[in-house]
Amino acid sequence: MPRFKLTLSYDGTTFVGWQRQASGVSIQQVLEDILAVLDAAPVTVIGAGRTDSGVHALAQVAHVTLRREIDAPTLMRAVNASLPDAVRVTDAYEVPPTFHAQFSATRKIYRYRIWNSDVLSPFERPYVWHVLPPPLDRDAMAAAARFVEGAHDFVAFQGAGGRTRTTTREIFESRIDSQPGHPLITYEVCGSGFLKYMVRTIVGSLVEVGRGRRRPEWMAEAIASKSRAAAGPTAPAQGLFLVHVDYRDAETAGSSPRRVEDL
Amino acid sequence: MPRFKLTLSYDGTTFVGWQRQASGVSIQQVLEDILAVLDAAPVTVIGAGRTDSGVHALAQVAHVTLRREIDAPTLMRAVNASLPDAVRVTDAYEVPPTFHAQFSATRKIYRYRIWNSDVLSPFERPYVWHVLPPPLDRDAMAAAARFVEGAHDFVAFQGAGGRTRTTTREIFESRIDSQPGHPLITYEVCGSGFLKYMVRTIVGSLVEVGRGRRRPEWMAEAIASKSRAAAGPTAPAQGLFLVHVDYRDAETAGSSPRRVEDL
Repeated sequence: MPRFKLTLSYDGTTFVGWQRQASGVSIQQVLEDILAVLDAAPVTVIGAGRTDSGVHALAQVAHVTLRREIDAPTLMRAVNASLPDAVRVTDAYEVPPTFHAQFSATRKIYRYRIWNSDVLSPFERPYVWHVLPPPLDRDAMAAAARFVEGAHDFVAFQGAGGRTRTTTREIFESRIDSQPGHPLITYEVCGSGFLKYMVRTIVGSLVEVGRGRRRPEWMAEAIASKSRAAAGPTAPAQGLFLVHVDYRDAETAGSSPRRVEDL
Repeated sequence: MPRFKLTLSYDGTTFVGWQRQASGVSIQQVLEDILAVLDAAPVTVIGAGRTDSGVHALAQVAHVTLRREIDAPTLMRAVNASLPDAVRVTDAYEVPPTFHAQFSATRKIYRYRIWNSDVLSPFERPYVWHVLPPPLDRDAMAAAARFVEGAHDFVAFQGAGGRTRTTTREIFESRIDSQPGHPLITYEVCGSGFLKYMVRTIVGSLVEVGRGRRRPEWMAEAIASKSRAAAGPTAPAQGLFLVHVDYRDAETAGSSPRRVEDL
């Protein structure tokens, strides 16, 4: 019963998200259906995190246990041969049965892309939040982003339907990147874990600061409020990318460092 | 009767190309239909070059003469409001009636993107030619690309149906770019003009060299042969981008330098 760690890249545009649900096609469902045929038995695929409908992944991680003896490169080729083009297994590695894509994860990195210009490039349209001018105050957004760092109760940034034992998460890094004169503003956040809609609500709040409606310090107040009503709106899904997942398991240290390149 | 220079960015995936034709929707047709409504009269849009079906543009240039008095920013906003998301006017500028998008053009830059790896990123799939391993010999391709530079009769690289007064074109720069270990190989070519399928046939030939089927010097022999049969195959459309068009007209020098960013 070998267990495999799969690294996955997907364009979330046409999917209902990671998790299997009745309303449409999910990444999990597509993978489970292909693996069930391969293994001649029902298969459950566990992902590191549940990306929402329309959210993309450069390197989502999942694990699966198969009955069949198969080597990882063959598994990767077989799955990719059946997957739609919008989903690719970019790496596969056999791991010990103790490895768990969700529970063994120690850090995740998400990236959010904002396009702040009148004209939206056709090539960016499925991968950004198009925020029309006036220009966002990028320095204020960068200052506000820093208030997210540290261990906080982020319940104010949790969407409806989120259910976890604790709403406290540790954020190791939270920063805004942009080049002067370029319409693209990128938010990147690395943390121990994230609540439902948490990154998108942080971004919606940062844009409130960028628009001058709030001071940067308001981010700290919104966190401290522990009230969803005190935080900003939830940014749209299509600007969000799950970029990387780190694991504590020494056993996975030998896995290939190959990663799909950044957009 | 003001004349406007329009700069256009488009994702060519779903279009039959620049030029109006019966078999499907072209960029030219979409623009002409919108402008005809705006001008309450039939309108002809002339492009710098006819991109083929499936070819993209970061900055195609076109001109149009309207009956209506309208300023360029208003025209740009009005056209963008009606265009599908896959096509954007990124710049509009009023030009003298002597300006002609095709005949006044002095140089064009095309870029072709090759993805040389087992696994194709979902985000790259509509914008590259996926060439499976073994790895292409990038140094050999770079050496071969240099033989394209200079004034040559490129008739051997012209597709069926090409019709021009002369098949001689001057190529100012022709080069391969790539980073070691990264699957992306980029070909960029700047020339006085290009024959039908010329860039794609150059790329198809460079890949023959990259595969070790031909020596770099064979590029010069293929050009000298003046025979289509001597050159390589035509690379697929979706890897090709019209990147930039230069003009001699001093009158257009005042136009905004804004350009859609590279992919």
